[in-house]
Amino acid sequence: MARLPIVKNISELPQHNYGRSGLSHTTIAGSVLHGMKEIEVWLQTFSPGSRTPIHRHSCEEVFVVLKGQGTLYLAPSSHSKYPGNPQEFHIFPNSTFHIPVNDVHQVWNTGEHEDLQVLVVISRPPVKVFMYDDWSMPHTASKLKFPYYWDEKCYQTTTRKDEL
Amino acid sequence: MARLPIVKNISELPQHNYGRSGLSHTTIAGSVLHGMKEIEVWLQTFSPGSRTPIHRHSCEEVFVVLKGQGTLYLAPSSHSKYPGNPQEFHIFPNSTFHIPVNDVHQVWNTGEHEDLQVLVVISRPPVKVFMYDDWSMPHTASKLKFPYYWDEKCYQTTTRKDEL
Repeated sequence: MARLPIVKNISELPQHNYGRSGLSHTTIAGSVLHGMKEIEVWLQTFSPGSRTPIHRHSCEEVFVVLKGQGTLYLAPSSHSKYPGNPQEFHIFPNSTFHIPVNDVHQVWNTGEHEDLQVLVVISRPPVKVFMYDDWSMPHTASKLKFPYYWDEKCYQTTTRKDEL
Repeated sequence: MARLPIVKNISELPQHNYGRSGLSHTTIAGSVLHGMKEIEVWLQTFSPGSRTPIHRHSCEEVFVVLKGQGTLYLAPSSHSKYPGNPQEFHIFPNSTFHIPVNDVHQVWNTGEHEDLQVLVVISRPPVKVFMYDDWSMPHTASKLKFPYYWDEKCYQTTTRKDEL
């Protein structure tokens, strides 16, 4: 994999909505894009009303909220067959939260006027996401989306050999 | 380990210089502090003239520069017995860079008036740092500092059993 410039201007990195209305995603440091093996860092902006899918992944994830407000919906792991009603948490500028491994969650810009901008860090890249249509969908019915939206175009199976 | 509040206000998290003049360090999501196993996120501010030690660590590391300017000194891994003269890179607001595993490096606020503020992400926490007095110190003479400054007070050997 080609060695990229050491120092990059984030505002010059590619951003795209990957077909998801209201999303802007930039991979700041990526597995598929940049050869990271253990961590990946994203910059994401959600316009008012936009949100992530209801989903889970078998990795650690940390959010830092740079701008805007919204709601984190989180259904802690349990022995239920489906996530169930999530807890709701207000998220706000300069707040941080982490998603425990495999907890089903959703981040939603519940504001009306302001973008929600977050830095996201995950372990075990590239991310393998299990998506739910709603909070009562059985875990066994959740759908694996891999490679994920921003990894689709660049993903090559040969890069898997390096994975930890 | 006690479960911490899900959403935290970063400005209310402890910050400290840990005996290092010009540094302000906040652990946003930490191994020793918060039970993270695969990633750790820090917020650090370096006053003009202050800097990290010359050091290396066997983990991935990503920086996002939030404010200020400075210089990254980086000596890529080689077969030399010591780091040798580092390459210099200008770092600036909204820039990002990653440190390849075990490359010897130093981040320095080379400005005169403005703080340098960075978000730092590492894998394989808690960090085990090998420090160098200068760029011609043999790798074999570098000194392991573990637990690192901000982990010293909270570190308990029992938490090691959980480490991946």
